[in-house]
Amino acid sequence: MNIPQIDLPRVVIIGAGFSGLKVAKLINTHRYQVVIIDKRNYHTFQPLLYQVASTGLEPDSIAYPVRKILKSQKNTFFRLCNVENIDKDKNILNTDIGDLSYDILVIATGAGNNFFGNDVIEKNSLPMKSLIDALNLRSKILGNFEEALNTKDLNRRESLMNFVIVGGGPTGVELAGALAELRNKVLAKDYPDLDLRQMKINLIESAPRVLANMAEKSSEVAYKSLKELDVLIWTNTFVKNYENNVVSTQTDLTFNADTLIWAAGVKGNMLKGISNEDQGKGNRIIVDEFCKLKSSDNIYVLGDVALIESDLYPNGLPMLGSVAMQQGVYLANLLNQKAKGKKSKPFVYKHKGIMATIGRNAAVVEMGNLKIQGALAWAIWMFVHLMLLVGFRNRVVVFINWLWKYVNFNNSLRLIIRPYKTLI
Amino acid sequence: MNIPQIDLPRVVIIGAGFSGLKVAKLINTHRYQVVIIDKRNYHTFQPLLYQVASTGLEPDSIAYPVRKILKSQKNTFFRLCNVENIDKDKNILNTDIGDLSYDILVIATGAGNNFFGNDVIEKNSLPMKSLIDALNLRSKILGNFEEALNTKDLNRRESLMNFVIVGGGPTGVELAGALAELRNKVLAKDYPDLDLRQMKINLIESAPRVLANMAEKSSEVAYKSLKELDVLIWTNTFVKNYENNVVSTQTDLTFNADTLIWAAGVKGNMLKGISNEDQGKGNRIIVDEFCKLKSSDNIYVLGDVALIESDLYPNGLPMLGSVAMQQGVYLANLLNQKAKGKKSKPFVYKHKGIMATIGRNAAVVEMGNLKIQGALAWAIWMFVHLMLLVGFRNRVVVFINWLWKYVNFNNSLRLIIRPYKTLI
Repeated sequence: MNIPQIDLPRVVIIGAGFSGLKVAKLINTHRYQVVIIDKRNYHTFQPLLYQVASTGLEPDSIAYPVRKILKSQKNTFFRLCNVENIDKDKNILNTDIGDLSYDILVIATGAGNNFFGNDVIEKNSLPMKSLIDALNLRSKILGNFEEALNTKDLNRRESLMNFVIVGGGPTGVELAGALAELRNKVLAKDYPDLDLRQMKINLIESAPRVLANMAEKSSEVAYKSLKELDVLIWTNTFVKNYENNVVSTQTDLTFNADTLIWAAGVKGNMLKGISNEDQGKGNRIIVDEFCKLKSSDNIYVLGDVALIESDLYPNGLPMLGSVAMQQGVYLANLLNQKAKGKKSKPFVYKHKGIMATIGRNAAVVEMGNLKIQGALAWAIWMFVHLMLLVGFRNRVVVFINWLWKYVNFNNSLRLIIRPYKTLI
Repeated sequence: MNIPQIDLPRVVIIGAGFSGLKVAKLINTHRYQVVIIDKRNYHTFQPLLYQVASTGLEPDSIAYPVRKILKSQKNTFFRLCNVENIDKDKNILNTDIGDLSYDILVIATGAGNNFFGNDVIEKNSLPMKSLIDALNLRSKILGNFEEALNTKDLNRRESLMNFVIVGGGPTGVELAGALAELRNKVLAKDYPDLDLRQMKINLIESAPRVLANMAEKSSEVAYKSLKELDVLIWTNTFVKNYENNVVSTQTDLTFNADTLIWAAGVKGNMLKGISNEDQGKGNRIIVDEFCKLKSSDNIYVLGDVALIESDLYPNGLPMLGSVAMQQGVYLANLLNQKAKGKKSKPFVYKHKGIMATIGRNAAVVEMGNLKIQGALAWAIWMFVHLMLLVGFRNRVVVFINWLWKYVNFNNSLRLIIRPYKTLI
């Protein structure tokens, strides 16, 4: 049995995402006892969620059990629980399985969907931030086609085959492209008795162009590639409401659609116990240049939920996996130095680039001044994502799936099982 | 678009299991229009469900979408629905998506759990007949360990770590072996702060030996292999009740267990509209030697739900995949002959053998007079199951998983997501 070494200061990490796991893996466990907690027992590789939703990958190959990731770490403990409150005065975390004291707290809770206060849209739309969301969406898409086959109500059939994706960022663009390929290559074979031309994929973006955070050239390529796949793109368009299967916008434009997928905004996953003064834009927690909560000496915040304001990034660093990973590495080093009585330099973000894939042989990659499009960008995108996946088995299985899809456009991952929930 | 050819007689097949799919694939679609219906959109390879439950395989690799299996079949249609009633007089099937007329009906609904009328056990136990059951069981096992870590109530911890499997047939034996390997090789690493010796796996069998349908030598080998894996075996034991986490038996023996897995009995999935006279032992439908319902000229019954009484098999043929497949091939031929005005000979079952695996390098195989045990039996078991899987991609992924497990005893398929349901 692994008996906790109780004379070491205890670092509690909330969240087993990119940043939380980096800290847990790189921290010196001769100097610290580590407890990492999460509401799920697995780490999710979020960048590939859209492929699970569009029947391209099985869920198990983009998720990895936290316990397995950390199995060779000494003095490291995982607990599956929900955090209810942070008691900063007592250095205690209140959770649904009891209280947990900490010497150092690392908040890495990530980001969730931002519906900008619209409860109706929140209730009626499908999000795509978790593995469970992606699985529910997969079942919903396939279930819609089964129902479309059986209805004689043409209006209902139109609605079932009309998909609206709100948000033209990487998630929306990648999902739109994947759904279009699913329609053209897979569903047309699966549903020979349906007229698949009736399936519409609408991508709605409030900005004047898709991939608004990337260079104009990348937006153009993405736009063109999506058009080639018969995706309908609506820029400068705001979704105002979604009720009774009708999507309304700021103009006369409406959509009769049974499925609305929300990829329009994210916000930090805030915790109770963080004071109002420490909360900034986008529901994120304001930290200093050492990723430390300004009002505390022993609380650090990393990844999507952390807000470091700087001249270069007045709205905080982008919510990217690479930011989270760099901050995780940084904090592990800072804590290791601190244990030796040494101080660390402030965190500096090195922008590694940004990329999105639209479909077969089509992607856009921006690395520094280098801007790549087309088949080469697609190959880079695939290589980078394969390498970032946790676990060699997962890489092999994902690679086989991709190769399979490339050769014959068709795999077999189309089970309808829903709803999925996390519930123990 | 695939326009139904309406001048052909329509064969409706209920169930996309082994027998239903064989008929759909082998029937002459120049002579018949085929409609196959199922309450799920996928075919489940039931013999490997226990590996999904014990975290050995991902669900997607042992299930295959029905539409994909049948995509190159002409005049063949799939509908996802539940059958509510058979109206034999009108030759109409009432389903939850409307009525469907048939010229020939094939009932291949398979078998479900038989709790022998004990509603309390049915309510409190976990079955293992569907993919959803297997996924729920996987989450339950892992969730129990997370909870066991956090409870200070030693009685509760014992209960969480105590697993009772009722039924010492192939399903029970294979699951017991897989759980024991999970404990010894995987959970011990995942939960270093739990004393895994406290995890108990109890296999309860009412007969005097496990694998009672196989030869005594096979039972002995299975018994010995399970003992080596520290499975507790209770033969000659009947489970009488399971309430408040206490399993009671016909003697003083009780178990304090949070999890009871029911693998003790199956019964045919009966349909409304089948008269009492047509129902036989084990909730199965009595058919003649042509697999035809005695009271009808155009209704056939195949697989687990069909009861052909013979001198050699007074209780009907065993509920095995190989019986179902042979009957499916037989009926497709019979119908193809019938379309030409020819008659067929009665169905004759050729026993291909029976096998079960207990764990690494341990299995028992009986083929005719040949009885094999140990590593060779294990290799045969693996080869046969790989070849029976639908889809080359699935074979590759399953093979990688097995190879992986053989080399390092550990994969990464341990997501807790539940409950799973089929719901569109």
